[in-house]
Order: sequence, then structure tokens, then C-alpha cells
Amino acid sequence: MKRVIVKAPMSSANLGPGFDVLAVALDAFYDALELRVVGEGVRRVSVRVSGAYSSSIPQGSGNVVLGPILRALEASGEKLEVEAILDKGVPPGRGLGSSGASSAAAAFAINELLGGVFDDDELVYIAGEGERIASGEPHYDNVSASLLGGFVIVSPGDRVRVHRILGGDGFRFLLAIPEIETPEKKTGVARSVIPRQISLRDHVISSSNLAKLVYGIATNNPAVAGEGMVDHIVENARVSAGLIPLYREIGKKALELGAYGVCVSGAGPSILILANEDLHDKIGKEIQVIYSSRGIKAKIISTRPAEGAKNIA
Amino acid sequence: MKRVIVKAPMSSANLGPGFDVLAVALDAFYDALELRVVGEGVRRVSVRVSGAYSSSIPQGSGNVVLGPILRALEASGEKLEVEAILDKGVPPGRGLGSSGASSAAAAFAINELLGGVFDDDELVYIAGEGERIASGEPHYDNVSASLLGGFVIVSPGDRVRVHRILGGDGFRFLLAIPEIETPEKKTGVARSVIPRQISLRDHVISSSNLAKLVYGIATNNPAVAGEGMVDHIVENARVSAGLIPLYREIGKKALELGAYGVCVSGAGPSILILANEDLHDKIGKEIQVIYSSRGIKAKIISTRPAEGAKNIA
Repeated sequence: MKRVIVKAPMSSANLGPGFDVLAVALDAFYDALELRVVGEGVRRVSVRVSGAYSSSIPQGSGNVVLGPILRALEASGEKLEVEAILDKGVPPGRGLGSSGASSAAAAFAINELLGGVFDDDELVYIAGEGERIASGEPHYDNVSASLLGGFVIVSPGDRVRVHRILGGDGFRFLLAIPEIETPEKKTGVARSVIPRQISLRDHVISSSNLAKLVYGIATNNPAVAGEGMVDHIVENARVSAGLIPLYREIGKKALELGAYGVCVSGAGPSILILANEDLHDKIGKEIQVIYSSRGIKAKIISTRPAEGAKNIA
Repeated sequence: MKRVIVKAPMSSANLGPGFDVLAVALDAFYDALELRVVGEGVRRVSVRVSGAYSSSIPQGSGNVVLGPILRALEASGEKLEVEAILDKGVPPGRGLGSSGASSAAAAFAINELLGGVFDDDELVYIAGEGERIASGEPHYDNVSASLLGGFVIVSPGDRVRVHRILGGDGFRFLLAIPEIETPEKKTGVARSVIPRQISLRDHVISSSNLAKLVYGIATNNPAVAGEGMVDHIVENARVSAGLIPLYREIGKKALELGAYGVCVSGAGPSILILANEDLHDKIGKEIQVIYSSRGIKAKIISTRPAEGAKNIA
């Protein structure tokens, strides 16, 4: 019986001013996915979910792993009966690319089973089918980061293309994850508050920050990258809509304590802070105090760029 | 008598999707500026202009070099009588950063005379006073490139900051300079046609291209940079307004012939093409044919990133 086990990391998309464009895979949480070929001659996929967050996500045919697996089987012409066992380690609904990690694991795993017939760009597209199940339309930033690892630039459009940024490996992030109730279709809500029109001036400021962020990552310069993490287009809208509790307070405190930069992780409510590792303890404690003062429980995790999806058995 | 001679290169600003943000200094044309201290106790600057384009630019007190020199004298508290002799080598009104080159030369030269009291960011600001004379408001992209050399990222806002991108030194460009009449206040006209509002979708596409352009420059990858040179926000507006003759035809032909990317140089009408040096002859000839077919004379020049302003005597 053919069998593969794959793990794929969480990711933070919409990095700073890189809305729908920049993402990073982080080693704080992983999904693991086992695929077993249990029959041939028919395309059928069954899904079982275990792990820390199994109760918070759709089981069976509503699970995102189904999309990429079926898409890959169709595209390759293979007729296989596949059993998928998902160990759900990435918390959903927190802006941590949870469905992207599952989708990436699924695309990577089925490609392994099929003998590696798809290239990276094709895998991103295949993984996007999982995101389509999760939120109605595919967003390729999360899946790209979880697939390829590290920092990625995504080209939008019908023909998705992804560039892995070689750089930023030494960056260290703090991830602040508030345990608040989030809306059922959080991503949709978070997108609905974004302005459809942007002033030329805001566009120019955003462009300048994005250029610094990419340059800072490519040259392993966290000070330049942190300067470029400032976003006031998408973040402002989401913060104003109350989707990212205590964002301004936490950002201000982190920068005061020496962090290089702060942004929302994905569509929030989690917050991503770029800071030297030796500051993580101190910043983490202060953030915890801010959340506590409003009665919000939060996990604060020190994390680093992760490798992409990989075969672990 | 204290005396200094400085030269500063031309530049292409608004690089691809980097409107007001990205620029590159190129070695096709230079301004040279001689400053002589002819007296003390009073702040006075006289200007003489020579060189290929001396008849096309303001002489005397309307010349851009006055702004940076006076600003630097004021900021430093020095009272000097200075004679400035500008050898004008960068064609004005062509999108080649002509006034930026003069402004950069002026800022750099007066700083040399004063013993290097200003740092790079301050020099950019001082040079911007020249651009204010040329077009009513300072644009720091051209002056930054002419001052620092190579590719630069400019942060807009009251406190200008500039990052020199280390990379792209091996890039080779073709510069197509049509000899057409341009409006008196070309930069103002070229800015007036740009939309004040941009759709979120265009913003995202532009961001993705900008990220690729910066990453391609930083990693010396002209294929990735060329992919990122596509702009359809500012360029579209200027091309539609008839400010960049034959832009689409020339761009299409250059890409067909193997160029990596094409964009408008500054506010136009010149066009910048990123292509391997061994293609320059062929592409250049074909572009010349396209201009000729519409009765437009044009200079086609093979060029490369230039060093910034420097002391030559």
C-alpha cells in the first residue's frame, strides 16, 4: 500500500503592505497529513481529522484537503482511492494560514504519491483549490508560503506565479494570538472592510514601504524590513472595524521596546512582531499584560521562518 | 581660492511600478558643476551655464543649482560668495532626471566645499531644493539616484529617507529618447493626468510587480526584475494622454526580441528597456525603425547603472 506523510507549516500572509502579495511560513504550528492509497480505478477521497484543532474545522467532504487531492488526481488522469488523515496543528480562524497549511500539505502529499508530476507553480495552483473550499475564492499567498517555505512573493491573476525570496532566514518573530471569538467566515468579513479605492498618495507610501520590506528581507536586514512593515491601507480598515483588538497599543509597546516592525498576521486577529530574539521575552510579557488588562487570553509564541511542506515518512 | 568640480549622472525615476519610489542612476549623460569660492562674508551665488544643453535651461538665478547651494550655505551658517559653472550634459525635458542631476551635483559640490558637513539623507533634502525650483515641489527620486548612484528606494513624506539598493550593477539598459516637443512644465502636465484614486485590485497587482522588481534588483536577476517592471497605473494614464509616443509598439517589439522589461523613464517621453547587452544593437535598430515610421527622430543609447555624484577635481 502506497503511503506518505507530509507536514506543512503555518504562515502569515498580507505581510505589512504586501496585501495578497507577501507571506512568510513560520515554525510555530504545523499540519501533518497522511495519505494512503486504498484502491484504484475510481477517484475517491475519505478524510479523517485528528489533532489539537480537529473539532474547529470541517470534517469529511467539507475539509479543504479534498480540493487539492481531487484536483491533482483529475489533472494527472490518475484514478485512485485515497484515505487522508489530517493531524490539525495550526489553529484555525487566527490569521495563521490554517487552511493554507492543510491545502499545501494536501497538494504536496498527493504530488509525492503521484511521483512528483507537478512543479512548484502547479502545486500552488492545486493547493489553491483547498483555499477555494475554505473561503470561496483561492488566495495563493498562504498556500505558497506553506508549500515553499520562507518568504514568498505571489503574482496575482489567472496564472499564479510565486517567487521564493532567498533571505530573511535569520529573522525572528513574535506571534501574538488572542483567543477571541472570530466570525464564522472571518476572511470574508476581513476583506469586506477593505476600501475598494485607494488614494495615489497612500499607494505611493505603501509602495515605498513594500520596497523596503522586500529589500530588507532579501538582504537579511531586519531594521530595513521592519521599517517597511508599516501598512496603513488594509490594516487601518481592519483595525478600525475592530477586527484586531489592541493592535495599536501592542504595536506601540513593541516598537518602544526595540522591535523592528509590527503587522497583522493574515487577516488577524493575530499580530506579528519582528524583533531580535533576545527581546522576545520582555516584549512577550508586556504584550501579555496589555491583553490581560482587557480580559483577553493570548498565546505569545517566539517563531522563525519555516521550511516548506516536506515528506516526513 | 577654494574650488571643486563634481559630476553627477542622469537618472530614470518612476521605475516600473515604483512611481515616486524607485529610481536608477545611468551613465548615459552627466552634468558637471564647478564651484569656486570667490569671496566671504556674504551669501551670494552666481551661475554660468555651458555645455550641450545650456540653451534649453534657465540661466542665472532661475537655474536649479542655486537652490541647493543657498540651502546648504544657510543650513551650515557659512557666508560665502560662490561662482557656479554648470556644464549641462543631461538633456532636459526627456524624463532623464536632468534637473535632478544638476541639483545632486550642486548639493554634492557645496558639501565638498564645506568639508562634508551633511550626510546622505541631508544631501538628498538639500538637493531637493533644486527640484523645487524646477517643478514647484521637490521629488526626491531623481536627486537621490544622481547623488547616491545605482538603484534607490525613496521614502516619501516630510522626512525624506533613501535606501541605496545594493544590486543590479550588471543590468544593462537601452534608453530610447525621442526628440519631440515636450510641454514647458512637462512634469506638472505628466503628473496631472495620473488618477488620484486607484482600485484595490490595481494596487495589489502593482505591489506584486514592485516586489518582484526590487527582489530582482537586489538579487541581480534581470528576468525577475523585468517581470516586475510592468506598470499599468501611472504609465497607462500617461500613454493614454499621448505623452509617451509609440510606447506600446516599442515595448511589444523589445519584449519580442528578448528584452526582460520595459518602462517609461521618469515622466517620459523616453523609454527604458532592460535587456542583455548582446541584444542592444538589434533592439535599438528595430526601435529606430518604429520611431522613423512616424517621422520621429530618436537617440537610442546603451547604458548601465552609474555611480553617484563624485568629485573629479
